[in-house]
Amino acid sequence: MLEVTAEALRALLPEGRVLTDPDAMDAYTRDQTYAVPGAPLAVVRARDTADVAATMAWAQEERVPVVPRGAGTGLAGGATAVDGCVVLSLAAMTAIREISPLDHVAVAEPGVITADLDRAARAHGLMYAPDPSSHEISTIGGNLATNAGGLRCVKYGVTRHSTLGLEVVLAGGTVIRTGGRTVKGVTGYDLTGLFVGSEGTLGVITAATVRLFPAPPRPPETVLATFPSLTAAGAAAAAIMGAGLRPSLLELVDRATLRAIDEWRRIDLDPGAAVVLLAQTDGPECPADALVRECERAGAAFAAASTDEAEADALLEVRRLAYPAAERLGKCLVEDVCVPRSRLPEMVERVERAAERHGVRILTVAHAGDGNLHPLFVFDRDLPGPPPPVLAAAGEVFTAAIDLGGTLTGEHGVGVLKRPWLDGEMGPGVRDVHRRIKRALDPDGVLNPGKAI
Amino acid sequence: MLEVTAEALRALLPEGRVLTDPDAMDAYTRDQTYAVPGAPLAVVRARDTADVAATMAWAQEERVPVVPRGAGTGLAGGATAVDGCVVLSLAAMTAIREISPLDHVAVAEPGVITADLDRAARAHGLMYAPDPSSHEISTIGGNLATNAGGLRCVKYGVTRHSTLGLEVVLAGGTVIRTGGRTVKGVTGYDLTGLFVGSEGTLGVITAATVRLFPAPPRPPETVLATFPSLTAAGAAAAAIMGAGLRPSLLELVDRATLRAIDEWRRIDLDPGAAVVLLAQTDGPECPADALVRECERAGAAFAAASTDEAEADALLEVRRLAYPAAERLGKCLVEDVCVPRSRLPEMVERVERAAERHGVRILTVAHAGDGNLHPLFVFDRDLPGPPPPVLAAAGEVFTAAIDLGGTLTGEHGVGVLKRPWLDGEMGPGVRDVHRRIKRALDPDGVLNPGKAI
Repeated sequence: MLEVTAEALRALLPEGRVLTDPDAMDAYTRDQTYAVPGAPLAVVRARDTADVAATMAWAQEERVPVVPRGAGTGLAGGATAVDGCVVLSLAAMTAIREISPLDHVAVAEPGVITADLDRAARAHGLMYAPDPSSHEISTIGGNLATNAGGLRCVKYGVTRHSTLGLEVVLAGGTVIRTGGRTVKGVTGYDLTGLFVGSEGTLGVITAATVRLFPAPPRPPETVLATFPSLTAAGAAAAAIMGAGLRPSLLELVDRATLRAIDEWRRIDLDPGAAVVLLAQTDGPECPADALVRECERAGAAFAAASTDEAEADALLEVRRLAYPAAERLGKCLVEDVCVPRSRLPEMVERVERAAERHGVRILTVAHAGDGNLHPLFVFDRDLPGPPPPVLAAAGEVFTAAIDLGGTLTGEHGVGVLKRPWLDGEMGPGVRDVHRRIKRALDPDGVLNPGKAI
Repeated sequence: MLEVTAEALRALLPEGRVLTDPDAMDAYTRDQTYAVPGAPLAVVRARDTADVAATMAWAQEERVPVVPRGAGTGLAGGATAVDGCVVLSLAAMTAIREISPLDHVAVAEPGVITADLDRAARAHGLMYAPDPSSHEISTIGGNLATNAGGLRCVKYGVTRHSTLGLEVVLAGGTVIRTGGRTVKGVTGYDLTGLFVGSEGTLGVITAATVRLFPAPPRPPETVLATFPSLTAAGAAAAAIMGAGLRPSLLELVDRATLRAIDEWRRIDLDPGAAVVLLAQTDGPECPADALVRECERAGAAFAAASTDEAEADALLEVRRLAYPAAERLGKCLVEDVCVPRSRLPEMVERVERAAERHGVRILTVAHAGDGNLHPLFVFDRDLPGPPPPVLAAAGEVFTAAIDLGGTLTGEHGVGVLKRPWLDGEMGPGVRDVHRRIKRALDPDGVLNPGKAI
């Protein structure tokens, strides 16, 4: 048997698409995690669907693994290269093929930066709602692969909810179109929903028809409240959501994070404040004063609203500084467990207990309206990856989330990093169904092996 | 080979579960369509998940087709019995296993009547949003199987959007649990979304964890507007949705329907009214006077709002009378094409042209906010099913919907009746993916054969 080389692939594609120089390839082998990449055979920088189809046909023929990637901002190792693979970068497929102000849809290629799509929609009075924290650097393709969430998803839903149809290249190179451009449609199985969140293991998305919403007519109002206890903050979040107020953002910042920010920037926070809740509202169904009232009723030590953009921006500073404050302390393992909303305070406490028990510094911010927590596990900058106490604490956090009726991952995906915990969340029957679907769509296992399922 | 009989099945199940008397079985063989059922071997009236699992294990072993059904209110023949099958009725699994006012979720068995689940939620200040027109007689199981829509889905989304997790019995009898009880969660593939809308061809749903919303604090306000032309009504619907007003109902009633209602009940409609638009709002983000204003701007001949419940009820009468007015004229073939919102007026015109060309009376009501039309094709009561001109007109309507970028079915499903048109909507690649997924989950093809895909 002849050894597979990248030359045959190079010959199939237009000039300049294929990289094989190890130094040039290096940046394409990893995401934002410490997952250790393998050495790829080649990197393909696709410019159109035909490039993707040709690569997929060749890879299937040669049984070469394909690792699709967008901007590499993932937090679960989903785009980590494996030995001998072709890394298939979609980052150069950046066309917004259409924006329809009439039908409130856009058709975007996978390399479009999330915030760019939103900006393009705003030019028509519309918005693209999903806004993962990485939205200025992440791509729509990566968002689709992981079913990304974000801050606004408490009101507008996650990426899957905004996705109406897809163009997908299957293993072997067949191009299919799923779904459509209507909000409703029940012809056949929900293949669109199936490919979204499948982390590149079932097909490669080369275009998406996404739903746009009318942009809110005015800038959001912002509310900040401090609470003496997690329980009180949790009660406030529950009361806000329970009253049907629909904030467009509802974030919790825990004591460890507040302390780390204060050590760095002196934010003059009330020393009694155990936790801060931040909310925004972009519509009349959610008056800012009603948010303040719910916070006060739940026991807030302080609660205030701001309509002034500069002042609102200052209030949001606490949330924005959380990640940099953590990164100032060392490397971070960023997790994203999600629990039923009512269990949020308990989950934050379980994180605090895990931090104490294992002597690990953990800063937690949470999308409180969704019960989705991001504990940031800080470790020594000189280490290549998280040391055993961090992994033990993370394992405890995963187990706690599942115990509380939640999930390992609310919006980042499983990638390679969370696979060891899959059995804790899924029964053997569900894992088996995953494998059967994977085999049905990728019988030779060329698509992103070792990820997601 | 021994012939398969129902006796072995009867022996596996508690007493009273299995019917074999042809007269007793007859009511379980059909839905609300003219699809001609086969003769089942037996009907199983399951009372719990164990009954379903035992039936599925036996059916797989014996290669007996299983046709799952709820209340039989389907409009696509999805629950039509086939010769020699076991009809598996879930109608007696009526437990609401849980309502959590804290997490805003309910866990319901498939036989729960849709409106009953909503009423149970209302006792906690919550609501179950999906409300297909059949919600007083349809079951949650049937709604899940078809991914049912309804009137409120213009604001709250379709059944899939309200479904967080499922208990499913697979072909062969394995019981799995998909999803969870959090709004966010990206562990593994979206199996929940895949089973919803799969019309009983991939597994049998025995419980669903669904999302509840806070019930609106006040009764809805209702707006009625008449328009001299379809184009003007379409423009009003587009303007309402484009302004981000989020009505909780936005329905269109066409001229043919208005005429049929007037012939019957004398509703004293303006003879110049080509079309009526009905809207409701249940929240401050959508003031009734803003709805009236958008209708007037778009050229309404008349537009008025009512906050009085009795008066609002009278306004809705036009929509409520549409089906009975059609049924008064004969038997009806009820279709449910869906097009991008901007193409709604064009689609109604295409329906009118098909009616003229084939000499068929067609009454159209539409969920205007979603572009989802229900043309009711009237035919002679003495006929067993739709005559050739009705089928020809329906075929033309399907083709038109697909031409306009839409779909064969917005919320009823494919069943047996729309399968001949599947190739018009799906390319061969997509159909092949459907078959591969079906084979992966039901290798022997026992689950609802001949339906959906």
